[in-house]
Amino acid sequence: MEFQEVVARRRMVRNYTRKPVDPATLARIVQTGRRSPSAGFSQGQAFVVVTDQGDRRAIAELADEQSYVQAGFDPWISRAPVHIAICVSEEAYRRRYRETDKLVDGREIRWPVPYWWIDAGAALQNILLAAVDAGLAAGFLGTHALPGLKNLLGIPDEYAPIGVVTLGHPAPDRRSGSLERGWRPDSEVIHWGRWNRDPTASGPRPGPRA
Amino acid sequence: MEFQEVVARRRMVRNYTRKPVDPATLARIVQTGRRSPSAGFSQGQAFVVVTDQGDRRAIAELADEQSYVQAGFDPWISRAPVHIAICVSEEAYRRRYRETDKLVDGREIRWPVPYWWIDAGAALQNILLAAVDAGLAAGFLGTHALPGLKNLLGIPDEYAPIGVVTLGHPAPDRRSGSLERGWRPDSEVIHWGRWNRDPTASGPRPGPRA
Repeated sequence: MEFQEVVARRRMVRNYTRKPVDPATLARIVQTGRRSPSAGFSQGQAFVVVTDQGDRRAIAELADEQSYVQAGFDPWISRAPVHIAICVSEEAYRRRYRETDKLVDGREIRWPVPYWWIDAGAALQNILLAAVDAGLAAGFLGTHALPGLKNLLGIPDEYAPIGVVTLGHPAPDRRSGSLERGWRPDSEVIHWGRWNRDPTASGPRPGPRA
Repeated sequence: MEFQEVVARRRMVRNYTRKPVDPATLARIVQTGRRSPSAGFSQGQAFVVVTDQGDRRAIAELADEQSYVQAGFDPWISRAPVHIAICVSEEAYRRRYRETDKLVDGREIRWPVPYWWIDAGAALQNILLAAVDAGLAAGFLGTHALPGLKNLLGIPDEYAPIGVVTLGHPAPDRRSGSLERGWRPDSEVIHWGRWNRDPTASGPRPGPRA
C-alpha cells in the first residue's frame, strides 16, 4: 500500500474477527518494528509475540477486559489473534553511551531525553503502520493497564514493556471516546520559524502554513 | 512510494544538496508527524519548522558542527535546508489523565511508562518515513547535543524538544560508525510466545521465526 494511504488509514481499532494472522505476515510486521532507528544504534528494543489463546486470555484478564465490555466495547483484547509486547532496555542505551566514542568530557551523557522511550515509540509506530499495510488493524494497551505483564511473559528485569499491540483482521468496533475531543488546530501544534511566543505579535510568519 | 519500500530505504542521512525543500512537500511531512497516535488523544506533540539560514546556522553552532567536520563528516546540520524540532509536553498528558474518564481509583495514573516520550518517538518516526516517501533524506540530532535549543527557538517551558530532524535532498554522506556494530540477531530481539528465559531449555517455540 502507498505510504500516505497507510498513514491516513491508521487508527486504533478495538475489535477483530476470529481469523488468525498469517505467520509470514506477522513475521514481516515484527521485522518492520525492528527496522526503526535507535540512539547510537543501541537497538534496545525487543518484542514478545503472543499467539497462544491461553496467554492472550491471561493478558486480557490482567487488563480487566470485563470492564471494557461493561463499558460497551467488544472483548477486543482476548479476541485479537496476536498480542505483541514492545519492550525496551534503558541499560542497553547506557552501556552504549559508556563506550569511548559516545563519552562527552569523558563521561556518559546526562540524558535530558530518555531515548529508550523515544525509540520504543518509533518501533511501536512502525508496527502500527505495518499492520495497516498488511490489511490488518491494531490497538494498543499501555503497561499501566497491564499489571503483571512482565511476569506473565517472563520479560527480564532489564527490559520494560511499554505495552501490548493487539493485532488482527478488523471488525466493526466502538471508537474511543477520546476522539470526540477532535484534533488540536495546526496553529497550536506547528510553529513556522520559531514558536509563536506572543500571539499578539503578529505579521506574516516565514514558511508555509499547512 | 510503497510503505515497505519507504521502511527499507529509511536511514539517517548526514548530507544534503543545496536544493530547498518544496513548501507543499514540507507541509505534508509535518502533517504526517502530527498524524501519529497519542495516549488518551492527548496530542502533546508539537513541531518547530526552521528554514531561515541564520537560524539553521545558529542550530549548527549549538551542535558544534565544526567537531563533526573535523571528524570527517560534512557540515550536514547547517547545510540541511530544513530543521524540524520535535517537542512534547508532559503536562498535556498529565492534564488529560486528570480528566474524569482517565482517573483510576479517583487518581491520575502513576505513569510506569512516560507516554509523552513514546508519542514523540512515534511522531519522529512518521516524519523520518514521510521524508523518504517524498524522495528526501533526514538525519537526527538529540537535544543533549543541542544546548540552548529551547531558548533559540522560543520553545515554552511546558514543552521539551527531543531533538532536531535535519531534512533535505540526499547527497553522498559518511555513514555513522555506529552502523559497523551490525544488527542484533533476531533471536535476541524477537521472542515468540514468551521471552526465552533459559536458552538451555529448548524445544520448538510457538509461532514463526522471521
